[in-house]
Formats: sequence, structure tokens, C-alpha cells
Amino acid sequence: MKVLVINAGSSSLKYQLMDPETREVLAKGLCERIGIDGRLTHKVPAKDAKYEFEIPMPTHAEAIQAVLDALLSSEHGVIKSAAEIDAVGHRVVHGGEKFASSVRITDDVMAALEECIPLAPLHNPANITGIQACEKVMPGVPMVAVFDTAFHQTMPAKSYIYALPYEYYETDKVRRYGFHGTSHRYVSARAAAMLGKPIEELKIITCHLGNGSSVAAVDGGKSVDTSMGFTPLAGVPMGTRSGDLDAGILEYLMNKYGYDMKEMMNILNKKSGVLGISGVSSDFRDIEDAAKQGNQRAELALEAFQYGVKKLVGAYAAAMGGVDAIVFTAGVGENDAATRMAVASGLEFMGVKMDAEANNTRGKETVISAADSKVKVLLIPTDEELMIAMDTAAIVKG
Amino acid sequence: MKVLVINAGSSSLKYQLMDPETREVLAKGLCERIGIDGRLTHKVPAKDAKYEFEIPMPTHAEAIQAVLDALLSSEHGVIKSAAEIDAVGHRVVHGGEKFASSVRITDDVMAALEECIPLAPLHNPANITGIQACEKVMPGVPMVAVFDTAFHQTMPAKSYIYALPYEYYETDKVRRYGFHGTSHRYVSARAAAMLGKPIEELKIITCHLGNGSSVAAVDGGKSVDTSMGFTPLAGVPMGTRSGDLDAGILEYLMNKYGYDMKEMMNILNKKSGVLGISGVSSDFRDIEDAAKQGNQRAELALEAFQYGVKKLVGAYAAAMGGVDAIVFTAGVGENDAATRMAVASGLEFMGVKMDAEANNTRGKETVISAADSKVKVLLIPTDEELMIAMDTAAIVKG
Repeated sequence: MKVLVINAGSSSLKYQLMDPETREVLAKGLCERIGIDGRLTHKVPAKDAKYEFEIPMPTHAEAIQAVLDALLSSEHGVIKSAAEIDAVGHRVVHGGEKFASSVRITDDVMAALEECIPLAPLHNPANITGIQACEKVMPGVPMVAVFDTAFHQTMPAKSYIYALPYEYYETDKVRRYGFHGTSHRYVSARAAAMLGKPIEELKIITCHLGNGSSVAAVDGGKSVDTSMGFTPLAGVPMGTRSGDLDAGILEYLMNKYGYDMKEMMNILNKKSGVLGISGVSSDFRDIEDAAKQGNQRAELALEAFQYGVKKLVGAYAAAMGGVDAIVFTAGVGENDAATRMAVASGLEFMGVKMDAEANNTRGKETVISAADSKVKVLLIPTDEELMIAMDTAAIVKG
Repeated sequence: MKVLVINAGSSSLKYQLMDPETREVLAKGLCERIGIDGRLTHKVPAKDAKYEFEIPMPTHAEAIQAVLDALLSSEHGVIKSAAEIDAVGHRVVHGGEKFASSVRITDDVMAALEECIPLAPLHNPANITGIQACEKVMPGVPMVAVFDTAFHQTMPAKSYIYALPYEYYETDKVRRYGFHGTSHRYVSARAAAMLGKPIEELKIITCHLGNGSSVAAVDGGKSVDTSMGFTPLAGVPMGTRSGDLDAGILEYLMNKYGYDMKEMMNILNKKSGVLGISGVSSDFRDIEDAAKQGNQRAELALEAFQYGVKKLVGAYAAAMGGVDAIVFTAGVGENDAATRMAVASGLEFMGVKMDAEANNTRGKETVISAADSKVKVLLIPTDEELMIAMDTAAIVKG
């Protein structure tokens, strides 16, 4: 079975054609500058080949057509006929409270996605556009929506409710949703497999640390809490995002500098996080280089980030009444041994003991805790595309 | 030695005349409706007597004069001459980064307090007015300022820095300050005394839970983190305050309802917290009554509050690399056995084991963990006035 996985942004579109059973990626790539001019980068892993094209993409429909042409090309293609694509899986950012799992896309689902737009005004319209473009270019191919929020819909009310007038929840759906759900679900399932135990018996803390970061508490395979909130701005400090804040700061800065809310939010989303503290970069590698060269603000940015994650690990262990495994994933979690060590060290009191040598690993599934560590610490590369392809295959097959 | 302790608000003023050595409270009371009309409630504990007077108080100076008159009165007074008041200790909310401990009030100190007004625009002006009123009515009596923020000035940068553009810290002093410092300092010192160990050797988590709540991590006698932030709005859900938030919520609600920042902040400060969730009350006793009668929102409000405190206990244990004692204090912490149990239960994995019977106690120093609990859990009534009086006596005596 071949599944095309689509992750559509406002002016970009990532794709992978994969077989969810063999896990083979036949081709993958990226459309950029949609609505501006159009550029396609197409990769064929089996040939270790990369192709770049300038193709006009006035809308997402032309981008999807370009993807299809690339997949079918006699030169750099990987399939002979569009009919070989059995299904399309779409990443959708926000499913609100309507979707607690992946779902086959129907007219009703499309209407529900439209209803979720106010909750994700930047992301959901792009996802919807991606779905509509596929429908146009590949009519009749079954499609599935896989939501960033769905995995966290199992959170109990005490985790998702904000201490605000309750009407904002009832009427306006203001609550913690959490994001990166596909990743937290994937790595928690892999953790159970690596430990050889049923996930139903495990308490797992998953640390998805990248340019955007979130931590989740996964108890018995279900998300019971996570650090991102109503929006992906919340939680720990990120590349450019502030994480949780004292709202009094907004009032103070807006009064002092005359910012309106839009300007303030732009600062919190784009100029804050480790970029804001360090003044160096939003890229953790740049910040680590600067810190090594003695830049104290860069060092502080790393410390504040690592400390924020460490506090969440403690918080979620308390929330679940203990923890069996701590998982690190995503760009920083998979590649940054220093951050993993900073987060997990000092947690001996709760049964965590790291193996410094094992931790000195990049991007492959590895147990990085000591053999006698009561709590297992795991490095697990995330694979949201595989998860989307697997969900899509399962739903299409029924 | 007799110390008059003053806690001045914008239209009220609390006082206690006490001997910090014997800890005897000679008299205490409250001036209300300052600037409106004026009412004095005066209590003499030794006589178990309470007096109420209507006295015009156009300014804080008349209020202080009324306090002095009450203390000197032949009928309900406790001293014969104003000269018996050896010193005055003032509670001051915000000392910014200038004050890491209590300080004798001088002209320079007054100037520094004025500089801190932007950080506490509601509180510091009232505190300054209280000091000026005392100077006017009791000239020459030595005075000491005791700050809510001072104890937390030992926090490391990773705890106090926000993930915002660094200029907001350097230029605008936007950072975590933390509050309730006098209470956290008092109960952590009492905890060490109860455990018979030097505070330098202890890791203590202090939960000051009342209408306003904050939790602090006290490592070796020094505050290393706390949940209130730049303002007292931050941290766990409180009586009417929201605690930490996703700033994306503010943008969403302000756009949807057309609130300006002032309206939004009023909602977050006055209509949120457990009042907002429950819709019942900001008073935990009312909410507990409602929950017992089956009000689900009241139950959710309690759960969200208790869960927030529990997560902080876990977070601070992780931050300190363990914990030796957890302290509960203030109105809810001292009196609400159910909240203490909800926070501390399920923490067996980190060595906490409660004693349900011992926990069934109100308002007196008690060990409420089981005899074999590795982590001691303590109920300790706070006494900020005593701490202020002790600091004042120590500084005045040199």
C-alpha cells in the first residue's frame, strides 16, 4: 500500500510517498513559495537523489499537481500511475474538541475543520487548502486527517481547564489543547516497544524538543497533560516563542511601549524564546556554539530552556504518581546530548540515572539511562509522517 | 522591646504591636475606609477584647494617629507612652532588585521605594504613604522596611529570567520577582527548627496557599524558585487570579470580545481563579461546600487548584534534585486537610507518605507525614507580622 502524506502550510507543502507496512519512503519533498512563484525540491531516498525545479504554483492545486508530476516522472519518478497512490494522509493542526483520533475526510469533516479555524487561524486554512487541492488533482482517492491535537483529547478536565471564567471554555472553547500529538503518540508507542512492555502499564514523559517544544505526560498510553496550551505559544521557552507567561508582563510592556496586542503577540511568537534571551539565534546549535565561546546570554538561554523542561519532567512525574520512562525526541531532543543530560541529571531522587556514554548518541533509538536506572531514559527519533501514513492505511482499510 | 508592625494598603492599614522576643501580641487591628470615612477595629488579645470605632481618616496619617490613640487609650490601650514603641516595621510589597533583605528606612531607601512604583503601581504607593504617615505621627522612631520580594532575590538567573527579548530585563526589569517572601522565609525556618536540622542542609518546598497562593523551592535556606512572577498574578490558580497563562488566550478573547488590556487584566485578576472555574465563590470553604453538594464546577475548581500545586511540588523537587520537607501554610494550607492530602498523595515515588490522622489538624505546627515518610510533610501556620517584628528588632539593635 502506498500513502501520500501531505503537510500543507500557508505557502509551503511537505510531502512523502511511503509504504506504511515496509516503512519505506519512496519519495519526499517540499513545495515552497506557493502563491509567489513556486519551487519544488524532490528527493528519492533509494537513489540518494535530490532534484530542484522552478514551477509556477499560484495555488496549492498547482503544487499538488507538481508533486504528482514528480512522482510520475519517467526520470525522477517512483510510480507509474497515479492509481498506485492508495490514499492521502493530511496533517491537520487543530481538531478542537471534535476529533480525538484520525478520521476519514468527508464533507462533514471538512465542515468541522472550517469550524476549528478560529482556534488555529494560521494553520487550519492552509491544511484545508491542501485537502481541497488534493481532491481537485486526485479525485476519488480516499483521504484521512491526522490531528496535532487529537492525542491530547484524553486529558482530564483538571489538566485542560484554565482558571478563567468558565464561560470562556463553554462558549469559546478556550482550554488547553496541546500540540505535537502525533509525535508524542509515536514516541510513547515506540518507548513501550523498546521496553517490551504493554503501554497500558507504563507512565511515560515524552519531551518533544525542537524549534517548537512540548512535553507530555502519557499514562497507560493516554495523554494526561501537556505543556502547550490553547495555542502552541505556551509551555517551555522555544526557539522564538516565550512559553507560559505572567499576563502582567504584557500589560506592563504594552503600557510602557504602546504596543497593541498584535505587536505584542508578534514579539512573543517571533522574537522571544532562546532567541530573545540569547540575542544570538533561534537555532540551538548556534546558541551552543556561542555559549562555548563564553557568551553568557547564550548560556543562560540554554539553561532556562533545559530548566523549564526539567521542571515539567518533575511536574508530570508528580501528576502521574511516578514515571517509568522519559523520552527525548525531535531536533534538539534527538541530537543534543548536553540538553538531555542537563534535563535528566539531578533526578536520581526519582530513580533516574543517566549513562553518559550511551547518551553521546545522535538520532537513533537508544536507551541512554544506566543499566540500573529505575526510570528508563530513551532517545527516540520521531516520525510523524510514518504515524500519519499508518493511521491513513488503517482507516482506509477499515 | 515593642515593635509596631504596619501593613498599609491603598484604603486600609493593618497593625500589630508586639514584642518580638516573647512573641506576645499586645494589640492588633485594622483601619478601613481610609480616604472615605474611617473605621478602626482594635483587638487586645490579653483581654480577649475587640473594639470598633468610627473615626474620620481622610489620609493614612489620621489612621496612624487613630492607631496610636487606641494603643495609648486608658480604656483599651496597652502602652502608657508613645515612647514605649521602640521601632516600626513596615511591610513593603516590592523591593525590585534593590533589596535582598530587610532594611532600615532612610531617605535613600524612600527614593528607592519610589523607583519601584512602576513594578507595583497599586501596592508600593500605599506602603510609602504608610511610612510617611508614621514619620509624621511618630517622628524619630526608627523604621524598617520588610519586602515581599526580598527572600526570592537569591533565585538564579535561570529561574527568574523570562524567555523574552533580553532588553526587557536589562532596561525594564521584567523578571520573576516572586512574592510572599516573608512567609516562605518564616515557614522554611520553622520547618528546619521542627526537624532539628540546620536549614543549610535542607531542601524545602513551601506551599503558601490562601486567597493568593505561591509555592517556593528553598534550597539550603535560600529561595531558588517560586511560582509568582513579575506580578502576583502568576503561578497556580488562586481565589480570583488566573495564574500562568498562554498569552494566545488574551489575544483570542480581546479580539473576540473587544476587551482592552485593562478590562482583560481586570478579568484575570478579579474574575478568574477558582471563582472563575466554579462560578461559586473565591473562598475555598464555599467552594468545598458546593463541591460536597455535587456542584461539578466547584469540584473541578478544587481539582485544578490542587493539581497545579502538586505539579509545582514535583517541578521544584526536580529543580532541587530532591526534597526533604514540604510545608503547607496560609489560610488554605493551614486549614484545609483535603487540599493538603490531594497535593501530597500519589507522591510515594519521591518518598512522600502522608498520615491521614495527623493531617486532620488545623492551624498548629504539626508533622502530617507518616513516621516512615522519607520526605517530611509539615503544617506550619505562617506569621509574617512576627517575621517583620523580628527583622525590625534585629536591624534597629544593629
